[in-house]
Parts: sequence; C-alpha cells; structure tokens
Amino acid sequence: DFLHALEEVQPAFGVNEEELQAVVQNGIIHFADHVHNILRDGKLFVEQVRNSERTPLVSLLLHGPPGSGKTALAATIAMASEFPFIKLISAEAMVGFSEQQKIGYLNKVFTDSYKSPLSVIVVDGIERILEYVPIGPRFLNGVLQALIVLLHKRPPKGRRLLILSTTSNRQMLADMDALDAFASSLRVPALSSLREISSVLRDVSLFSSKEEEARAMTLLQQAGFAEETKVGQLSLGVKKLLNVAEMCRQDQDGAGEKLVTSLMEMGYM
Amino acid sequence: DFLHALEEVQPAFGVNEEELQAVVQNGIIHFADHVHNILRDGKLFVEQVRNSERTPLVSLLLHGPPGSGKTALAATIAMASEFPFIKLISAEAMVGFSEQQKIGYLNKVFTDSYKSPLSVIVVDGIERILEYVPIGPRFLNGVLQALIVLLHKRPPKGRRLLILSTTSNRQMLADMDALDAFASSLRVPALSSLREISSVLRDVSLFSSKEEEARAMTLLQQAGFAEETKVGQLSLGVKKLLNVAEMCRQDQDGAGEKLVTSLMEMGYM
Amino acid sequence: DFLHALEEVQPAFGVNEEELQAVVQNGIIHFADHVHNILRDGKLFVEQVRNSERTPLVSLLLHGPPGSGKTALAATIAMASEFPFIKLISAEAMVGFSEQQKIGYLNKVFTDSYKSPLSVIVVDGIERILEYVPIGPRFLNGVLQALIVLLHKRPPKGRRLLILSTTSNRQMLADMDALDAFASSLRVPALSSLREISSVLRDVSLFSSKEEEARAMTLLQQAGFAEETKVGQLSLGVKKLLNVAEMCRQDQDGAGEKLVTSLMEMGYM
Amino acid sequence: DFLHALEEVQPAFGVNEEELQAVVQNGIIHFADHVHNILRDGKLFVEQVRNSERTPLVSLLLHGPPGSGKTALAATIAMASEFPFIKLISAEAMVGFSEQQKIGYLNKVFTDSYKSPLSVIVVDGIERILEYVPIGPRFLNGVLQALIVLLHKRPPKGRRLLILSTTSNRQMLADMDALDAFASSLRVPALSSLREISSVLRDVSLFSSKEEEARAMTLLQQAGFAEETKVGQLSLGVKKLLNVAEMCRQDQDGAGEKLVTSLMEMGYM
Amino acid sequence: DFLHALEEVQPAFGVNEEELQAVVQNGIIHFADHVHNILRDGKLFVEQVRNSERTPLVSLLLHGPPGSGKTALAATIAMASEFPFIKLISAEAMVGFSEQQKIGYLNKVFTDSYKSPLSVIVVDGIERILEYVPIGPRFLNGVLQALIVLLHKRPPKGRRLLILSTTSNRQMLADMDALDAFASSLRVPALSSLREISSVLRDVSLFSSKEEEARAMTLLQQAGFAEETKVGQLSLGVKKLLNVAEMCRQDQDGAGEKLVTSLMEMGYM
Amino acid sequence: DFLHALEEVQPAFGVNEEELQAVVQNGIIHFADHVHNILRDGKLFVEQVRNSERTPLVSLLLHGPPGSGKTALAATIAMASEFPFIKLISAEAMVGFSEQQKIGYLNKVFTDSYKSPLSVIVVDGIERILEYVPIGPRFLNGVLQALIVLLHKRPPKGRRLLILSTTSNRQMLADMDALDAFASSLRVPALSSLREISSVLRDVSLFSSKEEEARAMTLLQQAGFAEETKVGQLSLGVKKLLNVAEMCRQDQDGAGEKLVTSLMEMGYM
Ligand SMILES: Nc1ncnc2c1ncn2[C@@H]1O[C@H](COP(=O)(O)OP(=O)(O)OP(=O)(O)O)[C@@H](O)[C@H]1O
Ligand SMILES: Nc1ncnc2c1ncn2[C@@H]1O[C@H](COP(=O)(O)OP(=O)(O)OP(=O)(O)O)[C@@H](O)[C@H]1O
Ligand SMILES: Nc1ncnc2c1ncn2[C@@H]1O[C@H](COP(=O)(O)OP(=O)(O)OP(=O)(O)O)[C@@H](O)[C@H]1O
Ligand SMILES: Nc1ncnc2c1ncn2[C@@H]1O[C@H](COP(=O)(O)OP(=O)(O)OP(=O)(O)O)[C@@H](O)[C@H]1O
Ligand SMILES: Nc1ncnc2c1ncn2[C@@H]1O[C@H](COP(=O)(O)OP(=O)(O)OP(=O)(O)O)[C@@H](O)[C@H]1O
Ligand SMILES: Nc1ncnc2c1ncn2[C@@H]1O[C@H](COP(=O)(O)OP(=O)(O)OP(=O)(O)O)[C@@H](O)[C@H]1O
Ligand SMILES: [Mg+2]
Ligand SMILES: [Mg+2]
Ligand SMILES: [Mg+2]
Ligand SMILES: [Mg+2]
Ligand SMILES: [Mg+2]
Ligand SMILES: [Mg+2]
Repeated sequence: DFLHALEEVQPAFGVNEEELQAVVQNGIIHFADHVHNILRDGKLFVEQVRNSERTPLVSLLLHGPPGSGKTALAATIAMASEFPFIKLISAEAMVGFSEQQKIGYLNKVFTDSYKSPLSVIVVDGIERILEYVPIGPRFLNGVLQALIVLLHKRPPKGRRLLILSTTSNRQMLADMDALDAFASSLRVPALSSLREISSVLRDVSLFSSKEEEARAMTLLQQAGFAEETKVGQLSLGVKKLLNVAEMCRQDQDGAGEKLVTSLMEMGYM
Repeated sequence: DFLHALEEVQPAFGVNEEELQAVVQNGIIHFADHVHNILRDGKLFVEQVRNSERTPLVSLLLHGPPGSGKTALAATIAMASEFPFIKLISAEAMVGFSEQQKIGYLNKVFTDSYKSPLSVIVVDGIERILEYVPIGPRFLNGVLQALIVLLHKRPPKGRRLLILSTTSNRQMLADMDALDAFASSLRVPALSSLREISSVLRDVSLFSSKEEEARAMTLLQQAGFAEETKVGQLSLGVKKLLNVAEMCRQDQDGAGEKLVTSLMEMGYM
Repeated sequence: DFLHALEEVQPAFGVNEEELQAVVQNGIIHFADHVHNILRDGKLFVEQVRNSERTPLVSLLLHGPPGSGKTALAATIAMASEFPFIKLISAEAMVGFSEQQKIGYLNKVFTDSYKSPLSVIVVDGIERILEYVPIGPRFLNGVLQALIVLLHKRPPKGRRLLILSTTSNRQMLADMDALDAFASSLRVPALSSLREISSVLRDVSLFSSKEEEARAMTLLQQAGFAEETKVGQLSLGVKKLLNVAEMCRQDQDGAGEKLVTSLMEMGYM
Repeated sequence: DFLHALEEVQPAFGVNEEELQAVVQNGIIHFADHVHNILRDGKLFVEQVRNSERTPLVSLLLHGPPGSGKTALAATIAMASEFPFIKLISAEAMVGFSEQQKIGYLNKVFTDSYKSPLSVIVVDGIERILEYVPIGPRFLNGVLQALIVLLHKRPPKGRRLLILSTTSNRQMLADMDALDAFASSLRVPALSSLREISSVLRDVSLFSSKEEEARAMTLLQQAGFAEETKVGQLSLGVKKLLNVAEMCRQDQDGAGEKLVTSLMEMGYM
Repeated sequence: DFLHALEEVQPAFGVNEEELQAVVQNGIIHFADHVHNILRDGKLFVEQVRNSERTPLVSLLLHGPPGSGKTALAATIAMASEFPFIKLISAEAMVGFSEQQKIGYLNKVFTDSYKSPLSVIVVDGIERILEYVPIGPRFLNGVLQALIVLLHKRPPKGRRLLILSTTSNRQMLADMDALDAFASSLRVPALSSLREISSVLRDVSLFSSKEEEARAMTLLQQAGFAEETKVGQLSLGVKKLLNVAEMCRQDQDGAGEKLVTSLMEMGYM
Repeated sequence: DFLHALEEVQPAFGVNEEELQAVVQNGIIHFADHVHNILRDGKLFVEQVRNSERTPLVSLLLHGPPGSGKTALAATIAMASEFPFIKLISAEAMVGFSEQQKIGYLNKVFTDSYKSPLSVIVVDGIERILEYVPIGPRFLNGVLQALIVLLHKRPPKGRRLLILSTTSNRQMLADMDALDAFASSLRVPALSSLREISSVLRDVSLFSSKEEEARAMTLLQQAGFAEETKVGQLSLGVKKLLNVAEMCRQDQDGAGEKLVTSLMEMGYM
C-alpha cells in the first residue's frame, strides 16, 4: 500500500546502486565543456568532505533548466565518490505522503547517514519535494524548514556528509531566503547551439545516413537554429531532445523532417 | 456507498472497453482535417512507447476549448493502441474523494499499469481532477504534485507507459509551471466555420429535407456565420452543437429556426 | 437531530409532490409574456430528454434577480414533466452539513436518479448550496466541483436526466468558469413596470375598491414608477412585491399609502 | 461546563420573559419621535405574521450605531406580540461554541419555533454571532450561510414566524450580499441633539437640582453641542450616555463638570 | 504538564494577592502628574460599580507604549478596590493553550466572577492574549470575539463587575472595531523629559553621589534630552529605564557614562 | 523515533557542555575589535542577572548576517557565565515537531530553568525556530507568541534568568513588532575588509607559504577587495570563509587561485 512505502525504504546503511544508475539511463553525453567542469568540481567537494577536519558537512546545489541533466550529473558525482552510504531522495518515493511523513522521511535518511563515516545524500528536485507551485505561491513550508535545518546540521563527531541538491527553480530558493543553506552552487546549462544538438543526435544514431543528418541540420539552420551558442536564443534540455528524437525515429517518412516540425512546434526557434 | 467507490475500481490488469466506448458516444465525425491529424500523431506516440528503448515513458497533452472532443479523441487513440492495460482516469470516478483519496487513487492506477508490459493511461479533464477554480485560484495542490511526479516517473525496467492527458485550460497548466511534465501537446480545435457545422448536422440528420437544411444555412449565414474559418470569429465545441441540435429537433415548428435562435442566444455570432 | 437529516431523505425513487408545490405557494401569476416563454422552453428540454438518443443528459440554468420566481418556475416545469423521479435539492435541507456531507447528499440524489428511466433534479439556489459570499470571495469549492462533475456525468445506459438549476448570481458562475456545465440558460426577469405591478396586486386583491387601486397607482406614478418597462429603471421581484403587499394590507389607514411609502423606502424609485 | 451550555437551552416551547426583560434594563425612554415609530412599525409586522395567509414568514432588520437601543427595542416588540414562542438568540449564549455548534444552536431554535403556531425569534447582534472583524475581513461563513437559509426557510404548514434581527453594521451585511434575506429594515438612530441628551438625563435624575442641570447644559452648549439635531454632528448611543451618567454620578464635586469633560474626552464635540 | 495548567487555576473565589503584587515589583514611582490622575479616575470607576444600580458592568481600557506601567497601574487600582474577587488574566498563564482552551479559560474566570457580589478582572496585554502580529495581521479571532462578548455581558442579577484591560496597541483594537466594547479608556504615557528620567533614577539610587548624577544629567542634556516634555521627542517606558539602569549599575567605570551610551544606542535621542 | 525526541531532552538541571562547545567548532578568531566588544558586553549582562534585585530577567538579542558567528559568540558568553543551568534551544532539536510540540518544548526548557537560581538560555536562530519564510510571509505565530511571552515572563521569586537570542533576520522581528521583547541587542558584523579575511586565513593556515599568501592577497586586491572596510562593499560571514577555504585547500593546483575564483563566483566583488 502506497502509504506505507515509508517502511520499505532501503537498508539504512549502504548504496542502492541500481536506483542511482537508473536515473542516468541514457548515459552522460559530452556535448559541451561544462559537462566535464561540473564533474570535476563535484570531485573537489567530495575530497573536501573526505579530508577537511573543519568542514565535516558540505552542501552543494546543482541548478539548471528542466531536463538539462541535473539528476544524472548529481548521481554520477555521488557514485564516483564511492562513499559507503549514498542515498537519493526524490519526490517519486514520497507520492501520497503527508507533510509530516515527508519530514519524517527526510529526517530518517539524514539520521541514517550519520551512522556512516562518509555519506552522500542526493536531494533531487527540491521544487517537487516542496510541492512548489508558482500560483500563490504554495509549498510545504514545514518540509522546506526541515530541509534547511538538515542542510545546516553538523553530523555527529567523526561523521562526514556531502549533500548534492538539484532544482530547476533556483529563483524559488532565492525567494525563500534559502540559498544560504548551500555552501556552493553549480549551474547545469541546457543545449544552446546546433552543434550541441548535432553532437547528441549523433550519439544516439538518430539518422540512418550522413546525408539524412546533413539534410536535417540544414533544415534546422534554415529554421533559425544557430550553429554556435548565442545569448538568449536556444535552451533545450538534453532529456527533451532525446525524447523528441525517439518519437521522430518512429516516423515512416524518416526522422529528419518530423524533427524540424516538432522542434518548431515546441517553440524552439 | 460513494466513499468506498475506491475499492470497486476495475480489475488492476486489463481494459474496460465499455467505459472507453461510452465517452465516444456519438462517434468521431470527420468534420475537418485536424481530426485525422490528431489521430495520426497519437499513433506515432503509441509506436514510440512500443518500440524505443530509451523512452519507456511518453506523456502527451490534448488541449482545446470545452466540448471540442478531447475526451473522445484520447479514448479513440488509447483503444487503437490495443495495449493490454488501458485505463481512463476522470473526476467522475472521484466525486466525494478527499485529496488523499484522490492521490491514492491516481497512485494505484499508475502502480497497476506498471504490472503490464505496455499500458495507456488517459488522465481526462485535469482541471476537474485538480478541482481548479479561477477564483483565488484554488485547486488541490497535493493532487497536482502527485500528478506531475507520476507523469515523470519512469516505469520499472521492462515496462512501458503512454499517458494521454486532456484539459480545456492549458493556460492553467502554464501558470502552474506544469507544462514541462508533458513531452508533447496536441491542440483540439472547436468548430470554426459554417461548413464544419453543416458537416456535423448532416452527419446526425437533423434536417428532414435538403430544403430545410438549405434554409437553415442561409439563415445562419445571414446571422453572420462565415462559410469558411476566419480568425477569432467562431468557436463552437462539437459536443455543444450536438446538444443544441437535439433540443431543436424537438421543436414542432421544425429545427431550423430554433437552431438559429439558440446559437445566437448562446452568443455565437 | 439536524446532523442526521441526511438519513431521512425522501424515498430514493419517486416524487415528493408536496415539497414541490410548497415552493409555488402563491401560484404563477402571468404578469408578463416571459412567464409563458420560460414554461414553453422548459417543456422543450423535457421533450429532448424524453426523446433524443444522443443526449440522455440535459442541464439547464434559470437565473434572475432575487425573488423573481426562479424556484417556483423550475418546480412548475419539473412537475409538468411527470417523470417518475423528481427531486428538489436546496440549501434548506443541508443546514449544518459539513462540506463532505453536502457532497455526499448531492451524489446520493444523482445516484438515486440513475435508477429511474426518466428523472428531473432541481438544483435550487446554487449560490446558497455553495455557501458563496462575495467577501473573499468564499465558497465550498469541493461542492462546486462535485456539482460541475455531476452536471456533466452521463447517466448509465438507458437512463435519462434533466437538471434544472437556479441562481440569482449568474456572474458568480461565470467567475467560477462554471457556465460551460450548463447546456442552456433561461433568464427570469423581475417586475419592471407599473403595469406588471398592478397586474400582480390585482391578482392578490390588495385593494378593497377600484378607487383605492386607482389612487395608489396614481401615487406610484407620481413617485416616478413608469407605466411601461424602461431600461435600467425598476427591478422588483414578484416575491418581494407579494411580501410588501401583505404588510400593507395590515395598515388600518388602508394599504395604498403604506405601499407607496414602503416601496420608496426600499429604494424603488 | 460552558461547552455543554447547548443542552441547557430554554424549554423548546414558551417564552423566557426574564431574559427578554433583562435586555431592556433601563426601560424605553421616549427621547425622540423615532422611538414611537419603530414600535408602531414593529406592531405592523407582528400583525402581518398573525393574519396573512400568503406570508407565514416575515423577517425584519433593526440597524443603528452601537448602543442606540436596538436590542431593547427588538425585545420590546417581541414581548408586545404575546406570541406563545419568543426566543432571543445572541452571541452571549454561544461563547466558546465551535462553528458547528453555533449552526446547530441556530437550527435548533428555529426548529423549536416551528412547533408553535406563532413565534418570534430575535437574532441579536448578527455581527457578533458571525464573529465578524473588519481586518481581513473574517467571519464564520458557515454561520452566515445557515442564518441566510433560516431567514428564508418557510415554516411548515400552519406555522408562522417573525424574525427580528439587529446589527450595528448594516454595511457588513451589504458586503455579504445578505440584505436580500430581510423583507424590511428599520433604522434605530443615536442621540443627535442636546435636547435629546437632556431628556434622557432628566429621566434618570442625574442632577440633584434644576440649577445644576441648567449649568451642565450651558457648559455642553458652550462646548459645541447643538440644541437641535444637525446633520453629521452628534451621534451618541443612549446606552453610552446612561453609562457616562452613572460614572459622573460618583464624582464628589458633582456630576455636571465631569459629564462635560467625559463627553469631550470621548470625542463628542 | 503545561497543557493542564488550566486545571491549576486559582481558587474560583478570592484574590491572589501575591500574583498582583508581583507585577508591581518596583512599586509606583510618582515621576509625573498623570500617575496620580490615573489612580484617581480608576477609583471613580470602582465606585460606579460599587454604587450604581443601572450599570452593574463597567469596562475600562488602559493603553500606552510598551513598558509605560499599564500592568502595574491596573493591578494597583484592582487591589485598592478591595473587592472580594480580583483576578489577573494574562498570556503568561496561557502559554501553549489552544484557541479553544484560551476561550474556555476566559469564560471560566468571568463565570467565576459572577459568583461574587463585587469583582475586578484585569485583562492584561490584550494584544498578547489575542496572539496579535502585524504581519497579515494575524490573531485569534475566536478569542477576540469571546472577549468582546464577555466585556459586554451583563453579570447575573445582584452581581457587579469591573473589567480593567491593558494594551500597548490601541490602534489594533480600533482596526478590529473593538473599541466600543470599552465604556471608557485611560492613556498611560511613557517618560517624556529629562526631569522625569531623573526622578526615576533618583528613586532607585542609581548614582553613588550627587556629583555623578549631575554629570550624567549634563551628558544626557548635551546628547539632546530635553529638560521638560516636548511634543514628539522622547518616549521611554519606565520599565525600560529601570532595566537599563540596572545594567549600567554593573559597569565598573560607573553607571553614568554607560547610561548615556546605552540610551543613545537604543535610539533615544 | 524522531517524533519522540522530545522525551530525550537533556537533564532538566545542568549544562550540556559538549553541545555548547560543538557550535564553537572552529574557535573564536579575533579578526576585528567587535569580537572583543561583544564578549565584554555579554559579560555585563551576565553580571546584571547575577546581581540586580530589580531585574531578575534579562533578555538580549545577537543579530547579524548569515554565518557571521552569532551562535558561536552566544555559546561563548553562556559558557563563560558558569551559571548552573545553561541550555541551547535551536531548530535542529525540533525537526518534525508540530507547532504544539515546539511550544511545549520551549515552555519546558524555560520551566526547567526556573528551578535553578541562575540560568542562561540560548535561543539560537529565531527565524528557523519560527519556520519563517519571506514568501507570504509565513511563520509559526503560535511559537512566536509563546516566545514573546516567555522572553517577558518573570521567573519565580529568587530565580534569575539570562536569555541570549540570535537571528540573521532582525527586520523580521521588527515587522513582527517583537523587538520590544528584548531589553538590549548587539550586532555581529560579517568580515568587511581584506585585512580581516587575511587574518582569518592565516589563523587556519590555508597557504603553505608566505609567498602563496601574498600572491592570493594581491589577486583579491586586483579583483576589487578593499584592504580596509568600506561602507556597503563586502559582507562575508566568517563561517562562509572557513568553508570556502577548506574546499580550496583540496585543489591540487594550490588554494590561492581557486579561492579568488570561488569568492568572485559567489558574488563577492
Ligand atoms: N551530459 C549530460 N548530462 C546529463 N544528462 C545527460 C547527459 N547526456 C545524456 N544525458 C541523459 O539525459 C537525461 C537527463 O535527464 P535528467 O533527469 O538528469 O535531467 P534533469 O535536469 O534532472 O531533468 P528535470 O529538470 O526534469 O529534473 C538522462 O537520461 C541522462 O542519461
Ligand atoms: N471529430 C470529433 N472529435 C471528437 N468528438 C466527436 C467528433 N465527432 C463527434 N464527436 C462526439 O462529440 C462528443 C465530444 O465530447 P467530448 O466529451 O469528447 O468533448 P470534450 O472536449 O472532452 O469536452 P469537455 O471539454 O467537456 O471535456 C462525443 O460525444 C463524440 O462522440
Ligand atoms: N410569474 C411568476 N413566476 C414565479 N413566481 C411567481 C409568479 N407569480 C407568482 N409567483 C409567486 O412568487 C413567489 C416566487 O418566489 P420564488 O421563491 O420562486 O422566487 P426566487 O426567484 O426563487 O427567489 P430567490 O431569489 O429568493 O430564490 C412564489 O411564491 C410564487 O408562487
Ligand atoms: N428609547 C430607547 N430605546 C432603546 N433603549 C433605550 C431607550 N431608552 C432607554 N434605553 C435603554 O438603553 C439601553 C439600550 O441598550 P441596548 O443594548 O438595547 O443597545 P444596542 O443598540 O442593542 O447596543 P449594542 O450596539 O451594543 O448592541 C437599554 O438599557 C435600554 O433599557
Ligand atoms: N509610575 C509608575 N507606573 C507604573 N509602573 C511603575 C511606575 N513606577 C515604577 N513602576 C514600575 O515599572 C514597571 C512597569 O512595568 P509594567 O509591566 O507595569 O509596564 P507595562 O506598560 O505593563 O509593560 P508592557 O507594555 O510590557 O506590558 C513595574 O515594575 C513597576 O513596579
Ligand atoms: N570571531 C568569531 N566569531 C564567531 N565565530 C567565529 C569567530 N572566529 C571563528 N569562528 C568560527 O566561525 C563559525 C561561526 O559559525 P556560527 O554558526 O556561529 O555562525 P552564525 O552567525 O551563527 O551562522 P548562521 O547565520 O548560519 O546561524 C564557528 O565555527 C566558529 O567557531
Ligand atoms: Mg531531475
Ligand atoms: Mg472531456
Ligand atoms: Mg429561489
Ligand atoms: Mg444590542
Ligand atoms: Mg503589561
Ligand atoms: Mg547560528
């Protein structure tokens, strides 16, 4: 029964490898430099937690537009740490929870982490965990407050904890006066040029031939997509692109034309 | 007792053919091209779910004015998929449910769908499921949040799911920052020309003779109805038209005149 | 005990003739043409429900100023249908009900109606059933949502249902985006001329002599009441007029003078 | 225990003479013409209820500034009717009641009244019964709605009911769209001239001698109090004046001077 | 347990002398004329309650800036009455009470008072009892409403009651339309001149010598403190001054200099 | 179980030395004069509580930007008092508490303190304890009210209490009209000059050589950091600086360059 999901949480100590890998379903495609930079900075924070006596608690925020790859990158950094306790917290595990149950769940995961000498907690999609909606705006303030406190709370002596949070709504956190809860933050950009789009599509072999690819790219260019990133012009999450690509792949008249139509109908260019 | 309706839900696995056919009560009349296009695009998404390894979850939004046929079209696409699990979720099955019961019901249907290798869920009339009212505005945020999470949640390994949602209030979803939850969206337009109206009325044989029909059409034209679609002029849901037609059919002085009066009193032209 | 009134509802199947007649306490006075027109249109909708295969559900809204006779007219149309199930739903039967109890009650009446091949439900005084108050505004959104769904919900195969709703606040329904729930709507106007007033007072024999009547009418005309309807000038519900008349009837100095004073103090002219 | 006060209400049938007389503690002083007029109009409504077949329910609103004597006048009209059932409803009997308990109490009193052939209910201080506060504004909407319905609800066949409501905030009722619930309304003015003040003080023999009185009146006149009513100048509830008078009576230096100081400090003139 | 504090209230009948004396901890220093005037007016109201047949209930409001001595003065007036029932109601006795518990507590104290022929109730710090906060603003409306009713409610025959309320936020009561609940009100001013400050400090012997005092006063005068009251210049509660004085007394370099610095840092001058 | 944490609170009487020392984890670095001044003023208030008969209750507010060292300084003052009862109240001990539980917890700590002749209570991070969020704004008004009352409430005879509160949002308290609850307040500034930054970094030996330090300082100066404090230019909490320093320490290319980049990315200069 979904209301008792709380009790079926993972073993208090350990890593749920499978769950973490699932969120990186389509791998990490290196379509731009920032992908590498984010992974490298992530590693630095992992080392700070592992080594510094003064800062047993480090809290990091990954933010960027919807579908830009925040969850996949946070999970990748977490798995790379090889800490004995790694846990992913997301709204998916809390559907139907009351506010109190959510707070209890968060508290339990953090308390569990304190039993391990080295831990990573991924708090994925803060805006969803808070049930934020811009109308109002409304959100679960009790959950927000618990989260701010837990992001702040020193683990017991001898324990160290890295917290990787993700959000597609950094402004929401600013409005909530909650940005101070993070020691640092990293921006995860969306695709912003035809070159990056092309890099991704090649990676998933959308086109059956070089010619088809060339034709599609020409069409996109004609439709206004810029070869290189230009300020304020294109912002397309890698997850969205992968989705459209798969739909177009079904078209019997070939994916190219449908891709152009779809991207344009979705409001890109 | 209506509060226990929850327990009487359909068998977890399977298709409730009758319920789906009931919402297409008056069939699909091909009064315009878009009817065909929507059904064809729907098929493309069905194939994406059936075939693509990368996207086991596809979520589609059908939106359009009240009575334009969204529910009937979504049900038609769903039935055409012939997936082993097809389920229609609508507010009608949840009258009197508390917010928690609604969330529980949604969660149960999605969880049930995960047991089938291939599933379609029709989430019909999102604005009603959310109990949205523009005064305030008010709505069940808990249900909205659960829905966004479920529209996003990858089915377990080896399972695939197509979600067809309908709404007559797309702007509401935009205001809620909820449009990102849908991979794509299709617009279902209302009738917008006398030609389309005429095509529907002929289909339901409202007039007893060619002459009566001609007379009525002339009257409507005189009243200002344009033969062909003009921007911002007419927007009449097919469901509304079918309803008025049946009322006029009762008039002993013949349906024609009453039809003109009724459409004008309702504010069309 | 008033909280258990729920259980004492009328037999699920059948007509509570007495209750319906009570709301037409002072009969239907034919003081203007619209009275006849409303009753005739009402009959047309009754026939649509009785005859059309395509529309087993028809929903109609009667709206007009306070005391203009909406309830009496709706009850009259309902009784004239002679359908085997006729039920009046009003706030009076729900005093002290919680929001859940109201929803349960509404749902029960509709569910009961589905057992009859032909039914009429009068939903009387929507604004009161919703506990609407313009400050805020506040209202029971759960009840509104249940009502919209029930006004929309197709009865089971072979069952037909006519819903007659009344409200003195049509704008409220527009603000709630709830007008689409009604297939049609009929306006019930208030008295708007001295001729109409005179017609009503004669019907209830307020004056003891022709002379007294003539004197009173002259006084009212002098006070500014127009003989024939003029735009935006007079709007006096027939119920209000009947009430004032009875009070004036008690005055020992004769009803005429008191009537003029009272109507003027109440702000009419 | 105060929460069970509900059960200790007066016998369902009958008049609580003592309670009614208590609210007219200081009698009715005839300091101005309107006092007589209000009592006379009240009698007219009593007769309407007693005699008219068409209007077994009459609902009247007495409104006026704080302390102007609304409660005392309503109780006086009620007692003069000599109806077998007379009941005073006020917030004093409902301290600590929940919203549901208030609604239940109101409903019970009305239901009790239906057992008597002729009844008067005094609904005293609507703004307090509704727990109205202008900040927000806030009030118990459930109680308001129950009240509107009860003010509207026809008693069963053969029963007749007069409802006398009082409020010092008529505008609040207008803002709530609740004025239509009253068939008529009577205004209870406050004292508005020195002559009226003098009439009251003489009635309660505040001054020990004619000279003292003359001196005090001269002082008040000098302080700006007008002998006769002038528009927008003075508005002093009779209850307030009686209160100040008694305080001044304690002053060892005589009441006159203290009276002038007190009235001026309280902001009158 | 703090939630059961309700049951440990004082004996229903009698005076809790100790509690009343505690709030006058530092006595009443006669640093200005108003101190005498307030006590004298208080006595007048005590006599009104003791003597007048017409007004068995008198309700008085003491208002003034924070720390100006409202509580100490109200308690002093109450004790001076020597009535058999004297009770202090304040938020301190209600920490952790629910709204219902607060209402129940208030109601109980008033009900208890009705058992004594002569009673005084001090309602201390209305804004705290109402849990008022200007953001919103928010407050316990149920408690406010109960209070207004109780301030208004005539004691049973033969019982008399004086109610002394205090608040540092009279405007709040005006905004709540609650000032009419008080028959009269007295203003308790803060210190407004160097002469008054000096009078208090001498009373508590802050300075060890005449010279030290003279030096401090000169410094304050140089800092801008006026010898005599000037409109809108200084407003320093006696409680605040006593507090600062005691802190300065600890300074090893003598109280004088620290006093000047502290008063200036606190924003006075 | 986290909901029962309430019962596991520290022994009612005594000092939890370890907990207090933990919040001063990185010691008190004397990077500026105010550090000394705050500790000295704190001592003065400790002496007032210890010595003055007139003021057995003293309440102090430490406020300043996030991470400026408020908690560490309050704990240091508290420990230096050597009072027999010292207790730290913070949101961390109340994660998941309901509003009632929070109030109960606060009340319990204060009640416990009354058993000791001399006590210090540190109320740390009021904005978190109140669950304040600027959107709305929202906060637990019940907790605020309880806190204001407890900050005000005289301990029983013979008991003395010092309350040290901290907040990074003094304006919030002003908006809540809650500043009067504090007898005095002390400001804790953030770092505001390169000299202060340098003083802290030297204390934690971030740089491996004098040269590296000089290079980093030059870079920062070039980036716009002023050597001495300038109005409105730099505001960097010591806690934040310590955190960044530790992260930079991990960089294999040396801490200096990363420090400059990080401080600039975080928006300082
Ligand atoms: N460079 C990349 N970075 C991140 N993800 C990538 C990259 N390349 C491919 N992917 C794939 O793209 C998808 C990114 O989805 P992900 O859920 O991480 O995005 P997100 O930003 O968290 O989305 P949302 O805003 O909905 O939370 C994953 O399936 C991942 O395997
Ligand atoms: N081309 C068409 N497309 C859709 N429905 C059609 C079409 N032709 C006829 N119909 C009939 O019209 C009706 C459309 O009603 P439907 O409930 O699907 O509309 P809707 O847009 O979902 O309405 P609502 O906005 O109230 O949810 C159905 O009875 C259907 O059988
Ligand atoms: N032509 C008429 N139409 C309607 N009612 C009439 C007519 N002539 C007389 N009446 C009488 O007038 C009264 C109308 O009251 P009714 O309660 O129906 O009004 P209403 O518009 O529903 O009022 P409300 O706005 O308060 O709900 C009834 O007593 C009815 O018998
Ligand atoms: N002419 C009068 N009309 C009404 N009351 C009078 C009159 N003369 C004397 N009184 C006395 O004045 C008092 C009026 O108080 P009452 O409570 O009726 O006023 P109110 O308007 O109801 O006050 P509130 O606004 O507080 O409800 C009563 O004690 C009554 O005996
Ligand atoms: N003339 C005076 N009037 C009142 N209090 C005085 C006076 N002289 C000395 N005091 C002392 O000053 C203190 C006044 O505090 P008190 O609590 O009465 O103020 P308050 O106005 O009620 O404060 P608050 O606004 O916080 O409720 C008491 O300790 C009292 O003994
Ligand atoms: N002079 C100083 N004053 C205060 N803390 C210092 C000082 N020097 C070093 N520190 C260290 O800096 C840190 C200050 O953190 P602390 O939690 O007290 O800041 P804060 O202002 O309470 O933060 P927050 O706003 O998050 O509550 C502690 O680790 C403390 O040991
Ligand atoms: Mg994500
Ligand atoms: Mg639909
Ligand atoms: Mg009606
Ligand atoms: Mg009254
Ligand atoms: Mg006080
Ligand atoms: Mg802190």
